[in-house]
Amino acid sequence: MPHLIIEYSANLDPRVDMAAACETLRVAMIRTGVFPCAGVRVRAHRAELFSLADAHSDNAFAHLQIRIGSGRDLATRRRAGEALMQEAQAIFAEELLTGYFALSLEICEIDAATSWKANPIHARLALTEPSEK
Amino acid sequence: MPHLIIEYSANLDPRVDMAAACETLRVAMIRTGVFPCAGVRVRAHRAELFSLADAHSDNAFAHLQIRIGSGRDLATRRRAGEALMQEAQAIFAEELLTGYFALSLEICEIDAATSWKANPIHARLALTEPSEK
Amino acid sequence: MPHLIIEYSANLDPRVDMAAACETLRVAMIRTGVFPCAGVRVRAHRAELFSLADAHSDNAFAHLQIRIGSGRDLATRRRAGEALMQEAQAIFAEELLTGYFALSLEICEIDAATSWKANPIHARLALTEPSEK
Repeated sequence: MPHLIIEYSANLDPRVDMAAACETLRVAMIRTGVFPCAGVRVRAHRAELFSLADAHSDNAFAHLQIRIGSGRDLATRRRAGEALMQEAQAIFAEELLTGYFALSLEICEIDAATSWKANPIHARLALTEPSEK
Repeated sequence: MPHLIIEYSANLDPRVDMAAACETLRVAMIRTGVFPCAGVRVRAHRAELFSLADAHSDNAFAHLQIRIGSGRDLATRRRAGEALMQEAQAIFAEELLTGYFALSLEICEIDAATSWKANPIHARLALTEPSEK
Repeated sequence: MPHLIIEYSANLDPRVDMAAACETLRVAMIRTGVFPCAGVRVRAHRAELFSLADAHSDNAFAHLQIRIGSGRDLATRRRAGEALMQEAQAIFAEELLTGYFALSLEICEIDAATSWKANPIHARLALTEPSEK
């Protein structure tokens, strides 16, 4: 189930390798020990149009929304969120030094009663790579 | 009010007609009998950047988030969600056979106290196509 | 913290200046008096693929999702939302006259216990432009 949805301002593209960021965050999600590998889905959406804070032309942002199945306790969710925020701060370390960048991360829980999934990746990983689940 | 927001990995584009998928899901939303035609808004956002599960290069995903006005009971929401998930499974039937695709759907309720709308499509459909409301 | 995420159908591009809309809504968010300038992040995501209401080819939509830190009372949230909806109705005034456009706005609260931020724009604005905070 775990989704990580990155939104970011297009002016980050020359400075941050967002494909690498997706990959790094995928590994970080698995390493929390909280999320099954087969369910991890990290993606990034570039915003071409944005207007931020004082509208300085250097202003940039990245927002990470994590959507997970409900049922994990607060301590577990906080531990996972802190680990991922730490990873995000490393990814955007140079931007965070500039005074023109805002980073944020939030965890949302998905209501089990009104969500559905069909994920054959689970079965494939169970068969071929049990150690990476 | 009913929104259906599809996010999908760009590697699905050669294999799935996502414009047709939007159209199919629009019709499916209306056919649930739960949502007024004039309010149905289906859209898809392609993610060019993503990293999924075990990072196999064939891995792909589609996530459907449905956002509806609050007030419908759980049974009604579940019935609508199941109908739409069934439709989505038909749309992505071939992908679901591959072991490299993850499909998910969730319903979120929008708080009536802090949401606003202005939708003249309602008035137009009431005038010209009463039977399709 | 305050995020304003606009989704809109691509057929609005020739008719509405969405970059200007982002700028207008940024100013409007600050003018509510509810949100600190340094935290305001407005962005727009164009949906190339969509299917709306009765599927008339002129149908278009814009949806504004505002995500704010929790803790403001309902009256404050409603006041902010109404001000921003008014601004949005001005931006899309011509579209709202057509009968082929749906506008909506919702406010979501971000759980403080499971959200994190690192926003050096705050410090920069505190140093250089105290009056605009």
